[in-house]
Amino acid sequence: MAKIIECIPNFSEGRDREKIEKIMDTVRGKEGVKLLDYSSDTDHNRSVVTLVGEPSKVEEVIINMAEKVYELIDMSTHEGGHPRMGALDVVPFVPISEVTMEECVEIANRVGKTIGEKFNIPVYLYEKAATASHRENLAKVRKGQYEGFFEKIKEEMWAPDYGPKEVNVKGGCVAIAARQPLVAFNVNLDTSNVEIADKIAKTVRHLGGGLRFVKAMGVMLEERNIAQVSMNLVNYEKTAVYRAFEMIKMEARRYGVSVVGSEVIGLVPMKSLIDCAEYYLQIENFSMDQILEKRISE
Amino acid sequence: MAKIIECIPNFSEGRDREKIEKIMDTVRGKEGVKLLDYSSDTDHNRSVVTLVGEPSKVEEVIINMAEKVYELIDMSTHEGGHPRMGALDVVPFVPISEVTMEECVEIANRVGKTIGEKFNIPVYLYEKAATASHRENLAKVRKGQYEGFFEKIKEEMWAPDYGPKEVNVKGGCVAIAARQPLVAFNVNLDTSNVEIADKIAKTVRHLGGGLRFVKAMGVMLEERNIAQVSMNLVNYEKTAVYRAFEMIKMEARRYGVSVVGSEVIGLVPMKSLIDCAEYYLQIENFSMDQILEKRISE
Repeated sequence: MAKIIECIPNFSEGRDREKIEKIMDTVRGKEGVKLLDYSSDTDHNRSVVTLVGEPSKVEEVIINMAEKVYELIDMSTHEGGHPRMGALDVVPFVPISEVTMEECVEIANRVGKTIGEKFNIPVYLYEKAATASHRENLAKVRKGQYEGFFEKIKEEMWAPDYGPKEVNVKGGCVAIAARQPLVAFNVNLDTSNVEIADKIAKTVRHLGGGLRFVKAMGVMLEERNIAQVSMNLVNYEKTAVYRAFEMIKMEARRYGVSVVGSEVIGLVPMKSLIDCAEYYLQIENFSMDQILEKRISE
Repeated sequence: MAKIIECIPNFSEGRDREKIEKIMDTVRGKEGVKLLDYSSDTDHNRSVVTLVGEPSKVEEVIINMAEKVYELIDMSTHEGGHPRMGALDVVPFVPISEVTMEECVEIANRVGKTIGEKFNIPVYLYEKAATASHRENLAKVRKGQYEGFFEKIKEEMWAPDYGPKEVNVKGGCVAIAARQPLVAFNVNLDTSNVEIADKIAKTVRHLGGGLRFVKAMGVMLEERNIAQVSMNLVNYEKTAVYRAFEMIKMEARRYGVSVVGSEVIGLVPMKSLIDCAEYYLQIENFSMDQILEKRISE
């Protein structure tokens, strides 16, 4: 099987269709890179792109995309509901096939260096590419947002990893990462009390003393009048999907609440679900090489 | 994604390495066809080959393979522990990707016609390609084996679908099918009493009033001193793996016996295990298009 990485660049334009399509033109139909999905949110005024492909081709496409983003988006007039620090806001690189996390860290550094020098943009590396532990968490890196960075960047602990030591007024800053694939997995409860979902979320997540690679919060599904534990599983190999699921069921019993269903949002790596089948079916000595489709694609 | 079928030809030589390799040479390294696996059993005196590829290329390879098989194997002197009716014994075609069962039935007919006419071999179509309901089950078709066919072929209900109306003394007959992918799934019990495994097998299998697409029997694992329910799931989309598994657990309780593990033998279609994850995690509205690897390979 070929080397494949995933990249999920987010840029700060979700309203102007013409600009969005011009940016997407830099990504579409490029050899060695497949555009899996993109969606724009007008409230957030932000677009999220998912692409996969050969590492060097993905790198090239991201640089071309960045060039167009910095040409078309002006952060000094940007408004939107989602936290953001730049025109090109975040660029995570994810190992998918025959690629190590270390290689993704190298890619993040190479792309960061290029964006910093070529477009004169301060670059912050986060997650596995972070150069200090206080820079691992994106929320901490992005805190203060575009507007706050004019001060934040002057602090020594927030000096950029690449690029100039002052904010680019038009383009802002950018956060670039190497990270594990993320599984967005939500569990629905048979209660309309969102406080219960929130309490369960707090016990299951890392912050609250729960599972190491779980981020979670309680959410109300207004249409169905039920509460949901909404999760991001940031390392499904170490904190398996079934483990988070069973822990929620266990905690829900305290409130006499049951799990009525769950949902997987967007794309998931095959192994994150195969691991669950292995657990529940108690399969001994299973190898991913036994998956017919995997063998065919090799 | 391209059209892909799987084919698992079995031929009646498992001892003479030189002959086996000459036959395998007709399969190896052919454009559009991938050899996933082959193994030979000296007790059975039989080899099982797994290949996948574009339908027309697989057809071509099977005809070339048949030619070499009929050249090298002489059934009039064949001995072996496994039931067999010909030098090329069975040739099932399985739809994998972008191919319907109907197309596989057409392939089985086309290949059957060619083998019948070109090599002068009586051909029986079975499973989904069967031309009558009493010919669906391979065990029934093959009953009497090579030696018995000299009489069986004279019966009107066992007239061949293609080829001559008498057995080819050297090549025997051949059974050709279109069928669903098969999942070989075994469940281990915490008892050394194989009778319990056998009783459970009888309740879970179709023959005994159990699940429609389950074949099962009790087996003793001598090395571990435990009994096993050994199954072939012949249509995992209609009789899901988890359903057979949970039914075995349920029946085992009658004997105070627990399930200690399970095993998947050989290759399985990804969906057969993803379906189990969906069930146990209670995932609502999941689509196979959410599997990252599937999207990448499209």
